[in-house]
Amino acid sequence: MTIHYPNGTRSSYCAQNLPKIQANTFSNRGMRLEEALNESNQYYLTHQLAVVHKKPTPIQIVHVEYPKRSAAKIKEAYFTQASTTDYNGVYQGYYLDFEAKETKNKTSFPLKNFHEHQIRHFENCLAQSGICFAILWFATLQRCFLLDAHDLIMAWRNQAAGRKSIPLKTIEKNGIELTLGIAPRIPYLAGVDKLIRKETHDG
Amino acid sequence: MTIHYPNGTRSSYCAQNLPKIQANTFSNRGMRLEEALNESNQYYLTHQLAVVHKKPTPIQIVHVEYPKRSAAKIKEAYFTQASTTDYNGVYQGYYLDFEAKETKNKTSFPLKNFHEHQIRHFENCLAQSGICFAILWFATLQRCFLLDAHDLIMAWRNQAAGRKSIPLKTIEKNGIELTLGIAPRIPYLAGVDKLIRKETHDG
Repeated sequence: MTIHYPNGTRSSYCAQNLPKIQANTFSNRGMRLEEALNESNQYYLTHQLAVVHKKPTPIQIVHVEYPKRSAAKIKEAYFTQASTTDYNGVYQGYYLDFEAKETKNKTSFPLKNFHEHQIRHFENCLAQSGICFAILWFATLQRCFLLDAHDLIMAWRNQAAGRKSIPLKTIEKNGIELTLGIAPRIPYLAGVDKLIRKETHDG
Repeated sequence: MTIHYPNGTRSSYCAQNLPKIQANTFSNRGMRLEEALNESNQYYLTHQLAVVHKKPTPIQIVHVEYPKRSAAKIKEAYFTQASTTDYNGVYQGYYLDFEAKETKNKTSFPLKNFHEHQIRHFENCLAQSGICFAILWFATLQRCFLLDAHDLIMAWRNQAAGRKSIPLKTIEKNGIELTLGIAPRIPYLAGVDKLIRKETHDG
């Protein structure tokens, strides 16, 4: 892979994807979940419906070279753990925060896809009245759900006592299924609308 | 500089600061504006007052090595331009979005510190009812202001016709001066409260 600096959005976008080397495909077009979400975010941005971005992958830089007449070159760096989820932004005055994960499983979503720091971040954001959720992609089933972070946190915090995964049946019951489209490919704002209505009713 | 992977928050935090090699000091303690803000964000997070994080510096990765029994090592990467501002998060249901900049000037804040993509991002976030602002640090004067993004955008968009900087007098009049403290070092939420009250009155 030899992409040279400087270049456009496309390449920095590739760079952000690199750390997660996944063979999983997203739909028959061989696109990945993250790409589909980035395209959806771009659609929402362009149509002034929401401003949501994926955060850059956090990198710890150890050594940088500054060649004459060309861009600074990072010669040594490592991937570091994020302290937040991957996506956040604003939608009609609401703070949105989410994580997107996929599984090949057919009957449940493994909780090992989520990490303590993400769960804690969700808890912190919910305490500030943020709208928090996970986008769960069942790659084999080709089904996509939006799950309220409250449900995810409960399942995650109960792992020790109970299941290590969330049954598909539970997700079907408590989550919001998203029908994939062309543009946006993952119309998650439709799910967010339902989530907001639910939160407002619960509150 | 030889920090080795894996390591804690502190180092990834250093990594995030590295790209901007600035000799500017923040107060007599030789700390920088960004560090002061990160500490303030940490304070707000710990005290459950707000969840605000600096976004990682976007990097375009070209070459990664995967040594046996040790962490993946990035061997070639470049800094890329962000498409957003540096800080965002949630505070009492409000989406916060801001950029922090400093100047050694004593009478005005140069607009060259801000870039088209940041201004456009502010406009997009304001259209979604986000709370957007700049934190302006006059390093020589040791004075810190929170300036509503509306004011910044107006000054920035009028550059061609008018001034290339915002006079301190204008910032004193339209901005909110922040009195620096120990914890949080930059108590910007006090300014945000005023901004929210203003927005609510204006709306």
